[in-house]
Amino acid sequence: MDKVTEYYKLVTKSKYFFKPDDLSHFRFERDLGQPGAYPFTRGIYPEMYRTRVWTMRQYAGFGDADATNRRFRYLLDKGQTGLSVAFDLPTQMGLDSDDPMALGEVGRTGVAIDTLKDMERLFDQIDLGKVSTSMTINSTSAILLAMYRAVGIKQGVDPRLLSGTIQNDILKEYEARNTYIFPPRGSMRLITDIFEYCSKELPKWNTISISGYHIREAGATAVQELAFTFANAIEYVRAAISRGLDVDDFAPQLSFFFVAQMNLFEEIAKFRAARRLWAKIMKEKFNAKNDKSMTLRFHVQTAGSSLTLQQPDNNIVRTTIEALAAALGGCQSLHTNSKDEAIALPTEASALTALRTQQIIAFETGVGSVVDPCGGSYYIENLTSRIEAEVEEYLARIEEMGGAIKAVETGFIQKEIQDSAYEDHQEVESKRKLVVGVNSFIDKEEEEIPVQRISPELESKQVNYLKEIRAGRDQEKVNAILARLSKAAQESDNLVPIICEAVEAYASVGEITGSLRQAFGKFRPMVTI
Amino acid sequence: MDKVTEYYKLVTKSKYFFKPDDLSHFRFERDLGQPGAYPFTRGIYPEMYRTRVWTMRQYAGFGDADATNRRFRYLLDKGQTGLSVAFDLPTQMGLDSDDPMALGEVGRTGVAIDTLKDMERLFDQIDLGKVSTSMTINSTSAILLAMYRAVGIKQGVDPRLLSGTIQNDILKEYEARNTYIFPPRGSMRLITDIFEYCSKELPKWNTISISGYHIREAGATAVQELAFTFANAIEYVRAAISRGLDVDDFAPQLSFFFVAQMNLFEEIAKFRAARRLWAKIMKEKFNAKNDKSMTLRFHVQTAGSSLTLQQPDNNIVRTTIEALAAALGGCQSLHTNSKDEAIALPTEASALTALRTQQIIAFETGVGSVVDPCGGSYYIENLTSRIEAEVEEYLARIEEMGGAIKAVETGFIQKEIQDSAYEDHQEVESKRKLVVGVNSFIDKEEEEIPVQRISPELESKQVNYLKEIRAGRDQEKVNAILARLSKAAQESDNLVPIICEAVEAYASVGEITGSLRQAFGKFRPMVTI
Repeated sequence: MDKVTEYYKLVTKSKYFFKPDDLSHFRFERDLGQPGAYPFTRGIYPEMYRTRVWTMRQYAGFGDADATNRRFRYLLDKGQTGLSVAFDLPTQMGLDSDDPMALGEVGRTGVAIDTLKDMERLFDQIDLGKVSTSMTINSTSAILLAMYRAVGIKQGVDPRLLSGTIQNDILKEYEARNTYIFPPRGSMRLITDIFEYCSKELPKWNTISISGYHIREAGATAVQELAFTFANAIEYVRAAISRGLDVDDFAPQLSFFFVAQMNLFEEIAKFRAARRLWAKIMKEKFNAKNDKSMTLRFHVQTAGSSLTLQQPDNNIVRTTIEALAAALGGCQSLHTNSKDEAIALPTEASALTALRTQQIIAFETGVGSVVDPCGGSYYIENLTSRIEAEVEEYLARIEEMGGAIKAVETGFIQKEIQDSAYEDHQEVESKRKLVVGVNSFIDKEEEEIPVQRISPELESKQVNYLKEIRAGRDQEKVNAILARLSKAAQESDNLVPIICEAVEAYASVGEITGSLRQAFGKFRPMVTI
Repeated sequence: MDKVTEYYKLVTKSKYFFKPDDLSHFRFERDLGQPGAYPFTRGIYPEMYRTRVWTMRQYAGFGDADATNRRFRYLLDKGQTGLSVAFDLPTQMGLDSDDPMALGEVGRTGVAIDTLKDMERLFDQIDLGKVSTSMTINSTSAILLAMYRAVGIKQGVDPRLLSGTIQNDILKEYEARNTYIFPPRGSMRLITDIFEYCSKELPKWNTISISGYHIREAGATAVQELAFTFANAIEYVRAAISRGLDVDDFAPQLSFFFVAQMNLFEEIAKFRAARRLWAKIMKEKFNAKNDKSMTLRFHVQTAGSSLTLQQPDNNIVRTTIEALAAALGGCQSLHTNSKDEAIALPTEASALTALRTQQIIAFETGVGSVVDPCGGSYYIENLTSRIEAEVEEYLARIEEMGGAIKAVETGFIQKEIQDSAYEDHQEVESKRKLVVGVNSFIDKEEEEIPVQRISPELESKQVNYLKEIRAGRDQEKVNAILARLSKAAQESDNLVPIICEAVEAYASVGEITGSLRQAFGKFRPMVTI
């Protein structure tokens, strides 16, 4: 029993129950108020899930566009309500499938997209006027967005009605996720171009999904997840304002992406604190006037890092707890991991159970019948305020350093994350933090579960397909657009319209990225430890 | 979307968020106070799971004593911390395995126990001085308790140190579960004899587990679950006081058993309301002075009725949510259902995942690090008080009728349960209540899962074993004790010591029950609809 006691004492330090005294700094009207009203702690809509359940949006993608299209249609058929595209690493890094550096990676962690043709196949028989699509794409986000727009137009959908999200959050790539291509200046230019373009041309599109997920998965704490995400967000807002955009013109299109980890109440409090923090930042720091600029809309993914190779059915339990945290925290959109996500690409069966997890929480548990059911709890309000205060402390430090880009350039953020990751690792090693099946309750015999792998023929098939596209297009036209893009990137015109032209002429992801790299250069990270 | 909205509106009627005004009748010191102090709303111990995690007690039993013994040792090896015995229907109905009425039922829904010999095999290599054991046994509870005591003595364990629980709650059998044998008067006599005997001889034993589980599973609402359970509890307390026992002598040995169903917050509020209600009943109605008489100690089982044959992995999700409700509600002991529990006897693999579910909640989610984490929530405190008030209303009605036995005899309680069951059925039929895989999100192709069944040879093996025991015992001695028991049952001596003698002479469950039936007669239910 001593181990257990030690574990619990550790989690909350010394306090083991909370009472009205713990809310002495709390004021209902100021800190909570009505759901759907400033500071939005309780939720961004008055009735939340009673009028609209969160979007069930499973991150999926593997192999080529046809295979992923089948999985998309399978999930939609099973009741999924939004799409989320996983791209393979070459697509994320701006490499074509025939690039020597792409070898072995084509279609492995996501779908391989080289040209608009692949994108047309990806959304075959899926009406982009009716579904919203999230795309986990950062350095090459403008290219994939341009392709999505082009598919929509080919389907007859007005771009003004297209809805979805591009991740497009480059700062967290430098900090934690590593799919960067250009130096920060070039990246920020592209992002601001997208903000400006979309505020006029794609008004229903979320121009960015500022992501704490990868920061946390890299080992950060809950407080750091919010702090570094908001520090990044502040940079994006500043960059757009510097460009001359009005805050209320682009801020309603900003969205966020967080993890749901295993500590249930910490996560609920984190989501609540995040809404209050963002509302205050936008109102007080940036003088936003529109409520929509102040409301934190966010997607959640359950924590990949919490899943274990051992005893895979246990992962269904973990994902359930985490998905519940997301629902009680008021997310707008949710991906629940499959039990085999720690091992391989999810099978159809495991992907279905993951979706069913969301449906059961939404429709069988009653948790959506009341908005912010935990509101007022002595513990949760105290924890919400504590997280808020600690995040504000971090934000003040980063401001003193000159903002998130500076804090990345000096390696401060990376170092903070690494320190937390090390500490967490030590907790598990020393068994102060227990993980069932890993450092406690270990089973000797392990069950085998079916895993899905990508066939080796995929790569050559995709390469041949790309060759055909190249052979069939107007190469002179492509060359001219790419040259024009490279030149524009060295000047100040918005690049998105030119990228749109390029994709419509079937220029590839690698070719467009190459033109931009000529202008922006390539980022080489500093070694920070 | 309309369906969903309707669903949520229905769940909470019209209120969609709660605020401080909703607690106008709430007084912290009176209604909550400190955990571990009257009225115990927040928990019966000051630090709850920080000092001792709930007992992980998986209900198990099938086939013969040897098969069940193997499962017990498997679960203990995997980290289970208490035992819970499922008996087959013949054992519960006081029928030996060779009784014609037992045909086809031997070892089917639980372990077959005929004589002390079976009980010795059941606990082979399990130290009764170190484990606590719960036994789901009612009409024949005195017999099985006597057997457990005898096994303990044979192992060299002082009966005063034996800990565990017998269900022994006959009133809910008449109301919902149907394993009654004798008319209420005889049943109540046995129960009171057990209270009296244990208060002196088995002071660490829970003499009864007053059960709302089966009432709720039969279709009752959460309010009815508490109301009928407490109405029954009041009868037991009154019967013991009429016998001349002091309330503080037997009340600390009373325990309870509830379900955890799918409506997360309703269940949490139910458990909190239950503690407050019981503390008030014991203090105000029965003048208990000892805190231990006022504290509601309870076991929880996740809801068998919430599981679906369809898409069995979904049941892992459901059980996780329900187990979480139990933990947040402050249970002392918990059984989590296996995913295949709706189909067949749990396999070893599914039983293990069920246990792992508890371990993950206890050790990975942090929910035990703070006592009563939901305390103070506007919604949950409001709901707790609402449930409390509605239960009190029911209890007042039942008191007016003359108590639970009267309310059973007139069929009132049965009728109330049936009405709720009908209403619930209608909700599912009309899809106002959604069940994933059943009335919504139906899959055409269903996966097959391995199920465990009892071999047909078990019955004849058990019958032969019983014959051997009968052949080897001192039959005259058995006859003499049984005659003495029958006579005593018509008079007023405590029957437990004679039952102990009978089991130690290897009289069977059927024989001892037969003697008692001669004295008490047999109960024939009224038709109530």
